[in-house]
Amino acid sequence: MGAPTVEAVMGVGGDHLPGLMTRLEERLAAVAADHGTALATEAGDTIAAGGKRLRPLLVFLACGPPADVTGLLRAALAVELVHSATLVHDDVLDAADLRRGRPTVVARAGRPMATATGDLLFSRAFGELAANGRADEVRALSRASSALAMGELVQRSDAWDAGVSLERYEWRCELKTARLFEAAAELGAMEAAGPVEALGAFGRGIGLAFQILDDVLDVSGPESRTGKGRGTDLLDGTVTLPLILARDRDPELGSLDVRAITAEQAEAVCDRIEATGALAESRRRALEIVTRAKDGLPAGLPQQQRVALRLVADGVVERFS
Amino acid sequence: MGAPTVEAVMGVGGDHLPGLMTRLEERLAAVAADHGTALATEAGDTIAAGGKRLRPLLVFLACGPPADVTGLLRAALAVELVHSATLVHDDVLDAADLRRGRPTVVARAGRPMATATGDLLFSRAFGELAANGRADEVRALSRASSALAMGELVQRSDAWDAGVSLERYEWRCELKTARLFEAAAELGAMEAAGPVEALGAFGRGIGLAFQILDDVLDVSGPESRTGKGRGTDLLDGTVTLPLILARDRDPELGSLDVRAITAEQAEAVCDRIEATGALAESRRRALEIVTRAKDGLPAGLPQQQRVALRLVADGVVERFS
Repeated sequence: MGAPTVEAVMGVGGDHLPGLMTRLEERLAAVAADHGTALATEAGDTIAAGGKRLRPLLVFLACGPPADVTGLLRAALAVELVHSATLVHDDVLDAADLRRGRPTVVARAGRPMATATGDLLFSRAFGELAANGRADEVRALSRASSALAMGELVQRSDAWDAGVSLERYEWRCELKTARLFEAAAELGAMEAAGPVEALGAFGRGIGLAFQILDDVLDVSGPESRTGKGRGTDLLDGTVTLPLILARDRDPELGSLDVRAITAEQAEAVCDRIEATGALAESRRRALEIVTRAKDGLPAGLPQQQRVALRLVADGVVERFS
Repeated sequence: MGAPTVEAVMGVGGDHLPGLMTRLEERLAAVAADHGTALATEAGDTIAAGGKRLRPLLVFLACGPPADVTGLLRAALAVELVHSATLVHDDVLDAADLRRGRPTVVARAGRPMATATGDLLFSRAFGELAANGRADEVRALSRASSALAMGELVQRSDAWDAGVSLERYEWRCELKTARLFEAAAELGAMEAAGPVEALGAFGRGIGLAFQILDDVLDVSGPESRTGKGRGTDLLDGTVTLPLILARDRDPELGSLDVRAITAEQAEAVCDRIEATGALAESRRRALEIVTRAKDGLPAGLPQQQRVALRLVADGVVERFS
C-alpha cells in the first residue's frame, strides 16, 4: 500500500476541504504580497514555496466543516506562518543553501535579511490570529511558538553529546515539532467548539511520531527520498533516537565521538546503526505512538472527521508522498 | 537644566508608578526564571539586564492609575519582551560583543542560541499579552512587532546607500522605533479605555524623535556618553539624518562613498557633518516633533497624566540620564 496523499485525506475529510486549502494558499500569497515593497520578497518566496501544508490541514480536520470559514482560515494561516518563520531561522542557523529545492532566504539575502524575515513572519502570525478575537487561540499559538524556540535552544545545547538521554531526546521532539502539531489541532477544535484537549493530544502524538520518523529517515535514507545525504543530523552534532537505541546494542557506537565523524564516514556510521536494528525499533516506537493517538480520538467525533484524522496519522507514518 | 530622570517622571506621574515598576521588574525576572532549565539563562540575563524601561513607563503613563493592575502589567511586560527580542536579534546581526556594558547573548552563547532566545522572547510577549483576552491589544503589538522586523529589512536593504532619501529615512525610523512606542501608548490607553488614537500618535512622535536623537548622538558623541565610538552607524553602512542633511550643504559629503570610510576616518567625517550645522538642524527637527506630540495630547486628559507624559517627552529629548 502506498502512502496516502494529502489529496486522499481531503477526499475523505469532506467537500469543504479543497476550497479551504485553495483559500489558504491565496491568503499565504496575499501575506507575501502585502508589504508594499520589494523588501518582503524574501518572506513571500518562503511562504509561497509550499510544502505539504500538513499543519493547516490538521487545523481544518480538527475543526470539521466550519461555521466560520474566515476564523478557521486565520488559524491555519497563523500556524503555517509560525512554521515558515521557524524554517527561515533554522536555515540561517544551519547556513542552509536549499529548502524544498529552492534557494533559502539566507542564501539569497544574507543572515540579517533572513533573521528579520523570520521575525516578520512570527509577528504576522500573531497579528492574523489576533483578528479572531480569541485569547485562547493566541495563547495556544504562543505556547507552541515558545516551545519551538526552546526546542532549538535544547538542540543546540545538546549538540555533540552522544550520551543524551532518551527522555531528553523525546522532550526535544515535543518542543521542536509536537507542540505546533498540538496547537494546530487545538486551534481547529477551538474554532468548532470541539474537544480541544483530546484533539490537541492527538496532534501532539502524530507530531512526535513525525519527528521520530524524520530522524529515522536521516539515517536510513535513501538520498533520493530525503534530498540530502544520510547522517546529516550526526554531522550537525544532533544525536537522535536511532543512535540513542543503537549505542546500547553496539559498544563501538556506544563510545562514538560524534565530533570526529567526517562526511565520508557518515554513511558507514548510518549502516552500523541500522545493523543494530535501531531503525526498526525507532519505527516501531513511532507507530505505537500513532496507534495510541488514533485510539485516543474522542468517541463522539463525527465519522467523517475521525476517518480523515486517522488517515492523516497514517500519512505521517508512511510519509505523505 | 539637567535631563529628567525616570524617577522624576514617576514622581509627578502618581503614587502608583513606583509599585508598578517594581512589579514589572519582578515579572521580567519571573519570565527569565520560568523555563525550568539552565537553557534560558541567556534570555533571562538579557531581559534582567535592564535599560531604562522607557516603553513600559509609557504604557503605565498612557493608562493612568489602573483599574486592572494585572492587565496593565502584562501589556508593559509584553512590550518590553518584544523590545528585548529585537535587541537580542540586532546583536546577532551586528555580532555585537557588549550591550549595556554586559556581554551580549550572541557573544556568550553563539548565534544559534541567540537567534532562538530572541524567538522565545517574541513568543512569550504574545503569550503574556494574550492572557488579557483582548484582540485589539494583540493586534497593536503584532503591528509594532511586524514594523520592527520591516524596519530591520529596510535598514539592511538601504545599507551603504549614501543617497537614501529623507522620506525613506523617516519611514525607517517609524518602523524601527516609533511604532513600538506607539503600541506602548496604545496599550496603556486601551487598558484605561482612554483615547487610544491620540495617545498612540503621541507615542509615535516621541519614538521618532528618540530615534533621530539617537542618530545625532552617534555622530556627535562624546564616546563617554554613548559608550561607543563616533560614526558607528556610518561604519555599519547606516546613513542617518545628519548625513542626509549635511550632504546637501557640503559637496564633498555629497559624493561620499560610505563603504570607503575606515574606522580611523570616521571621527573626521563626523566632524565634517557637524561643521555643516546638520546636527543642530537634526536636533531642531526632533524637538519640533516632540513639541507637536506634546501639543497633540488630548485636552480631556487628567492634569497629572498630562504633566507626566510631557515630562517623558522632554526626557526623550534630553535623553534620560
